[in-house]
Amino acid sequence: MKLHLKSKIRIIDDFPKKGISYKDITPLLSDNESFQATTDELQKYYANKGITKICGIESRGFIIGSSLAYKLNAGFVPIRKQGKLPYSTTSVAYKLEYGTDVIEIHNDAIHNGDIVLLHDDLLATGGTINAAIELISKFNPQKIYISFIVELSHLNGRSRITNNKTYNIHSLIKFDS
Amino acid sequence: MKLHLKSKIRIIDDFPKKGISYKDITPLLSDNESFQATTDELQKYYANKGITKICGIESRGFIIGSSLAYKLNAGFVPIRKQGKLPYSTTSVAYKLEYGTDVIEIHNDAIHNGDIVLLHDDLLATGGTINAAIELISKFNPQKIYISFIVELSHLNGRSRITNNKTYNIHSLIKFDS
Repeated sequence: MKLHLKSKIRIIDDFPKKGISYKDITPLLSDNESFQATTDELQKYYANKGITKICGIESRGFIIGSSLAYKLNAGFVPIRKQGKLPYSTTSVAYKLEYGTDVIEIHNDAIHNGDIVLLHDDLLATGGTINAAIELISKFNPQKIYISFIVELSHLNGRSRITNNKTYNIHSLIKFDS
Repeated sequence: MKLHLKSKIRIIDDFPKKGISYKDITPLLSDNESFQATTDELQKYYANKGITKICGIESRGFIIGSSLAYKLNAGFVPIRKQGKLPYSTTSVAYKLEYGTDVIEIHNDAIHNGDIVLLHDDLLATGGTINAAIELISKFNPQKIYISFIVELSHLNGRSRITNNKTYNIHSLIKFDS
């Protein structure tokens, strides 16, 4: 099943810039069977873990984050770029290759009784997920799980996740180049 | 049920600017019961319509668009802002209050056999949805359905949708102020 799903990821060379081998998840999403299978595989993995909230990172993290929230009967919480959320927020700034970025979450979204699944579509060098972990941690949830559809193993993002030994980090599809 | 869902929409005055009464869907999403109920109500409405693809408009349209695609066993297709999609795209430009915006879709995402459900979280004055209809129509699908979680009835967005008589337009929750 996982091999079949991997075949639905489209490799696009030199996007968004020269030298980058981009992993495009849209063929996996637009095919109803692989969309179902992706959600179902993740649901099987996270069933019985008591997940109460899935936090999806804008904007590709919203997609499987949402279908999985439905399937796990959890609430869905968007983590968004600065200025997009209308209510009171907590934010974290993080470094990009050039400049900085800021992500935000609503202050009433996570409570300390929550078991949170933090979801993004892809793990590369880990900058965004580290900022998201820092953000969620401010709300002291019971536990944080971390999930990706695709992991670029050769970029060692997993080892760059702060305190990575303390988290359950899971990806469905791995690439090593 | 619908009354209950309406109570989960948070009204935020003067966001994103003075005079606007913003309808915040995040409390509806973060509550697992209302998230389930929203998806289930829409699924009931669209069951047996033969939907093959749900096109969600970036980025709030990705959320319920995805859980509904899962529940209807349809594929999910993102409609994104310019420059975000890595493969070959078709695009449509549309006017905003100040300046213009461009939305795009992958060229291999929709085929003429598809029955498409176009989903966004909210119908205000209809600018974005009109651009999205124009975009999807270029691929000559069998039929286009149009869905929103929230409709701001007082802004008459429904009557501003081009050829609105020819589409099935559905919203789950209506506000008239």
